[in-house]
Amino acid sequence: MSMITLTTDFGTRDWFVGTMKGVIAGLAPEARLIDLTHEVPPGDIRGGAFALAAAAPFFGAGTIHVAVVDPGVGSRRRAIAIRSKEAVFVGPDNGVLSWALRDAQVEETRSLDNREWFLDPVSRTFHGRDIFAPVAARLAAGALFAEAGDPTDEYVRLPWPPVHRRENGLSGEILYVDRFGNAITNLPAAKLAPEALANGEVHLRCGALHIPLCRCYADAPVGSPVAVAGSGGLLELAINGGDFATHHGLAEGTPVEARW
Amino acid sequence: MSMITLTTDFGTRDWFVGTMKGVIAGLAPEARLIDLTHEVPPGDIRGGAFALAAAAPFFGAGTIHVAVVDPGVGSRRRAIAIRSKEAVFVGPDNGVLSWALRDAQVEETRSLDNREWFLDPVSRTFHGRDIFAPVAARLAAGALFAEAGDPTDEYVRLPWPPVHRRENGLSGEILYVDRFGNAITNLPAAKLAPEALANGEVHLRCGALHIPLCRCYADAPVGSPVAVAGSGGLLELAINGGDFATHHGLAEGTPVEARW
Amino acid sequence: MSMITLTTDFGTRDWFVGTMKGVIAGLAPEARLIDLTHEVPPGDIRGGAFALAAAAPFFGAGTIHVAVVDPGVGSRRRAIAIRSKEAVFVGPDNGVLSWALRDAQVEETRSLDNREWFLDPVSRTFHGRDIFAPVAARLAAGALFAEAGDPTDEYVRLPWPPVHRRENGLSGEILYVDRFGNAITNLPAAKLAPEALANGEVHLRCGALHIPLCRCYADAPVGSPVAVAGSGGLLELAINGGDFATHHGLAEGTPVEARW
Repeated sequence: MSMITLTTDFGTRDWFVGTMKGVIAGLAPEARLIDLTHEVPPGDIRGGAFALAAAAPFFGAGTIHVAVVDPGVGSRRRAIAIRSKEAVFVGPDNGVLSWALRDAQVEETRSLDNREWFLDPVSRTFHGRDIFAPVAARLAAGALFAEAGDPTDEYVRLPWPPVHRRENGLSGEILYVDRFGNAITNLPAAKLAPEALANGEVHLRCGALHIPLCRCYADAPVGSPVAVAGSGGLLELAINGGDFATHHGLAEGTPVEARW
Repeated sequence: MSMITLTTDFGTRDWFVGTMKGVIAGLAPEARLIDLTHEVPPGDIRGGAFALAAAAPFFGAGTIHVAVVDPGVGSRRRAIAIRSKEAVFVGPDNGVLSWALRDAQVEETRSLDNREWFLDPVSRTFHGRDIFAPVAARLAAGALFAEAGDPTDEYVRLPWPPVHRRENGLSGEILYVDRFGNAITNLPAAKLAPEALANGEVHLRCGALHIPLCRCYADAPVGSPVAVAGSGGLLELAINGGDFATHHGLAEGTPVEARW
Repeated sequence: MSMITLTTDFGTRDWFVGTMKGVIAGLAPEARLIDLTHEVPPGDIRGGAFALAAAAPFFGAGTIHVAVVDPGVGSRRRAIAIRSKEAVFVGPDNGVLSWALRDAQVEETRSLDNREWFLDPVSRTFHGRDIFAPVAARLAAGALFAEAGDPTDEYVRLPWPPVHRRENGLSGEILYVDRFGNAITNLPAAKLAPEALANGEVHLRCGALHIPLCRCYADAPVGSPVAVAGSGGLLELAINGGDFATHHGLAEGTPVEARW
């Protein structure tokens, strides 16, 4: 049974996502559908890219991931499908697929040119329904990847904010704020000095804040800030029982340092 | 495999929708469930009717659409099922089903009178769980439509706001504001003068706003208003990268004109 | 086909729930997944417990209910699985499972100690993905309940707020405010004097409010307060067409009396 995941900024208060599912179910009745999220902020390509990259490793080989955060819908931006060793990614060629492919072995990329795979007519405003849903469904139903369109070598890659190694530290930035107000940074826990980590000597600096790295949220008193190695291997800043990002007014892009 | 779609104003923060699904899964284990939306504003029958009408054409023949926006739950308002050539519609008889049936060939309408199909007891406040979910499940599982209840000729039809033809124009109103703040009007793109459309000479007027009709959102500069033919064939007003309805303080019912 | 329900405070705007589903689908491809809600307020164990208790009775025997409202994730709080005559419950041992078990016959309780059932590695912040999802999936796929971990006699039970019988009345409190602003109390409709109920002589008092008990919301004029026996058998306070809790500034824990 093939699996299709959906990541969009369509929200769930209109009929957009349900309509995509109707199209997919019509063309690939056996395909299983799993929502990653539909609440990417409108037009936030980075937010969609981060969510997809965080979830994709937990899906089985051959999963088809559809991501539609598409402020350029209807313009000349391309639509693409990318096949890696692990999965297939379908969406607009604006970078939303690219973070999930940072460590992937890409095997084949196709520009979605085969109009026979689309709904007819194709609207100018809803390619999620008219292009991406039917393309994903046809792939799920067994159509050849090579028939999706012309091969291409390139796809748009969002830059991943750089991590700089300092003496006894790392510097980077806040990459994503989640529903709890936890601020996920681009600092990988795996790049901390192991002995400093083992000895509990790591703290994070963010503006005037100095926050000790603990093992879990509940290691800090309720209401206190805490840094932890998050579930994706990146350091994050939180308040035990609170909303860190809102409380401190911090957003994506804010500089952060890990020090030991 | 039969398919059931769900459209409600129950939200997703309580257990209402999940409970309906439990009831359906118990009675029709093979039926596939697809959510259209559960975030119709509480009691907004028009909003639910519009969402269902927009999505239903993209589902296969025989799909069972359940819509529960039901401020009169527990009162004397009827519960109905309507079978058209394409699909079956189940819900309260308050108009929420009617816009999806505007162009449909209705074959049979039944008042939901067969209490043997309901949960027992039936609550006074949650017919989604106690009546509409089990009725849809029984139909999905193969029960005869005629056994749902007594035949009836009538069902409540919401009026569709009229479109008036003007000299070199159409007048109508904003019908629905979507999650992006795009204001969908009742003006059909198909009723514009084809030569004016081809020559790019159409614009929309809404209060003091004069907005050119473009091919897609991205044809306007970011932050600028734009009119497009939306994915359901209706003209809509948007801001490229912004929230038109909030920015201009416009809501459903606001008069709109297309001029050329 | 086994069925797994999910109740969390993860929200739907990040990738958390989708990732849990990817893990489950990988280990138990045949299991059916139904969301109860993911919008339990962050860390609100009572809210999660109430939602699960309200929905669980409408699912078939053998359903596996996973509830993850887990402010203590990564600390020494236990993870448990509880098997009753009707269903299996999986989650952190903080009480979130307990209200669904108030009237249940518990047959077996296991501390989730079998690390071979977990993802490897187990993060400190996302046991929904790393522990609860794979444990539920393995149970759904047929693994023996007894292999989940060591048996235990105890699990954390949230106290259910007491109902006091008065002369011609009951006193209790608001237990849950739903999406519509309806305030669900802990007062069971079944404990009202039947003849007072039949004669329409019951009203609810909440602060200075005296609200008549009606049969359904629509029995009161639009905009007026109304009390009804809700779909879970508990009395609730509402405004026909309005938001009772917000309008009157009432929250969970507010004292309420039924009088006749």
